[in-house]
Amino acid sequence: MQPTKVYADRRSQPSRAVIIFCRVNQIEFEEVTVDLFKSQHLSPQFRKINPMGQVPAIVDGRFKLFERKVIHEQPRTETCNTFDLILAKNHAILRYLASVFPGVADHWYPADLFTRAKIESILDWHHSNLRRGAATLVMHTALAPFLGLRTSPEAVKQAEKLLMQSLGTIESVWLNGGAKFLLGSPQPSIADLSLVCEIMQLEILGDDVRDRFLGAHEKILIWMDNVKRATSPHFEEAHELLFQVKARMLSNNAAAANQASEPSTKHKIASKL
Amino acid sequence: MQPTKVYADRRSQPSRAVIIFCRVNQIEFEEVTVDLFKSQHLSPQFRKINPMGQVPAIVDGRFKLFERKVIHEQPRTETCNTFDLILAKNHAILRYLASVFPGVADHWYPADLFTRAKIESILDWHHSNLRRGAATLVMHTALAPFLGLRTSPEAVKQAEKLLMQSLGTIESVWLNGGAKFLLGSPQPSIADLSLVCEIMQLEILGDDVRDRFLGAHEKILIWMDNVKRATSPHFEEAHELLFQVKARMLSNNAAAANQASEPSTKHKIASKL
Repeated sequence: MQPTKVYADRRSQPSRAVIIFCRVNQIEFEEVTVDLFKSQHLSPQFRKINPMGQVPAIVDGRFKLFERKVIHEQPRTETCNTFDLILAKNHAILRYLASVFPGVADHWYPADLFTRAKIESILDWHHSNLRRGAATLVMHTALAPFLGLRTSPEAVKQAEKLLMQSLGTIESVWLNGGAKFLLGSPQPSIADLSLVCEIMQLEILGDDVRDRFLGAHEKILIWMDNVKRATSPHFEEAHELLFQVKARMLSNNAAAANQASEPSTKHKIASKL
Repeated sequence: MQPTKVYADRRSQPSRAVIIFCRVNQIEFEEVTVDLFKSQHLSPQFRKINPMGQVPAIVDGRFKLFERKVIHEQPRTETCNTFDLILAKNHAILRYLASVFPGVADHWYPADLFTRAKIESILDWHHSNLRRGAATLVMHTALAPFLGLRTSPEAVKQAEKLLMQSLGTIESVWLNGGAKFLLGSPQPSIADLSLVCEIMQLEILGDDVRDRFLGAHEKILIWMDNVKRATSPHFEEAHELLFQVKARMLSNNAAAANQASEPSTKHKIASKL
């Protein structure tokens, strides 16, 4: 059987979560880069993989094997068959990988229905709160100019509020009690990995903005470090590209600022040093 | 053991999905109304049940029973214990109920990992697409004036676009092939119920707006009818309050329109007839 294909762009936080999860759990996979900045996610080729044009997505041979056993009453169209082979959406992928690969430790997605239900509750919350706040903020402040999109000050304001509220909820509800991971657990789950990768995205807003949100949340900083240690060195490796993007953005911003204030090339170089 | 408590406001679409699911599957439960219009979800009493102040939420005696078996390394605080007893978020609740009540038919949340993974993919998509579009539109156009919130034309425009795109995705991806339910299934899953309850919320925008979105989506109309039939009469019963709210809103709008155009009381009454 072919190894699972993971279609990803490491600059996207859910892509990183899936890659880290595979590496930590020694799941054999082939990474296929879908460059979001080059709009490769909207290409007809990728639309054949994922009609919704989003990363991450996986194509897993198990799907194909299993398909033969599933009885469908209706005839399947070509599009339906194509979709059968892929799985999009970060949380759905993590749940699936944790369920079908026997080597994955139980704490990532516990079989116990009680604990699993609480993890599901956090994952559902993630979409409409932390992700909506953080991703909208990053999109409107850091990425929009590069992607040629219009920014909205109102959207930024709402996203900042939602992000701050979300960080507060994580601390007061799920990190309450001083445990190493969410829900008082001594081991990380897919919710820890997914949420921390989301928060890591704030890096590309620069240290000042990141600290404005995270500085007052000591429990979150400790928890993020716990997740990083539990998944090291794969966590750092998967985030390398993000830090490269951050360095490039900061350097561009500094150059733009210098250009505005310092007309001479000599001064510009000096200020970079 | 006490029956499961379901904290809900039937005017909220995820609340209705949970209530219909319980009724169809003959899950014994006690419904506790949390009136969103009276801000009861933000009351200190309800915050003790769900610190995030959202409906639906459930308190299930099984949680308490099971808790004794779970070994936690860290000492638990009062807040942690309280949260252990409740489960918020619609999808997480539906997954949990489908998993712990043996009488629930498999098609609602299939044990088969292949089918389940595809249902999870739709549920995840729901949060950031259909729900974000539909709920934002309803909030900004129908509910904001009643709740004293500021509306945003830009948010309405974006929500309308996202809603229309989402309806298109449902038809072209998950209803492709002409099956009765999503993913080519002959029986509904929790994804069918959850998404249809979301779309039903468009009713309170009035028939014209509803038809503007749904009129061109014949597959969706047929599918909604299939879900309604599969869960009848509980579907209709759970939606009664929504139609009452709709009637009141339309009547208020008509009265306001009459007041604006007809200064005499006599005329106003005549036009209402």
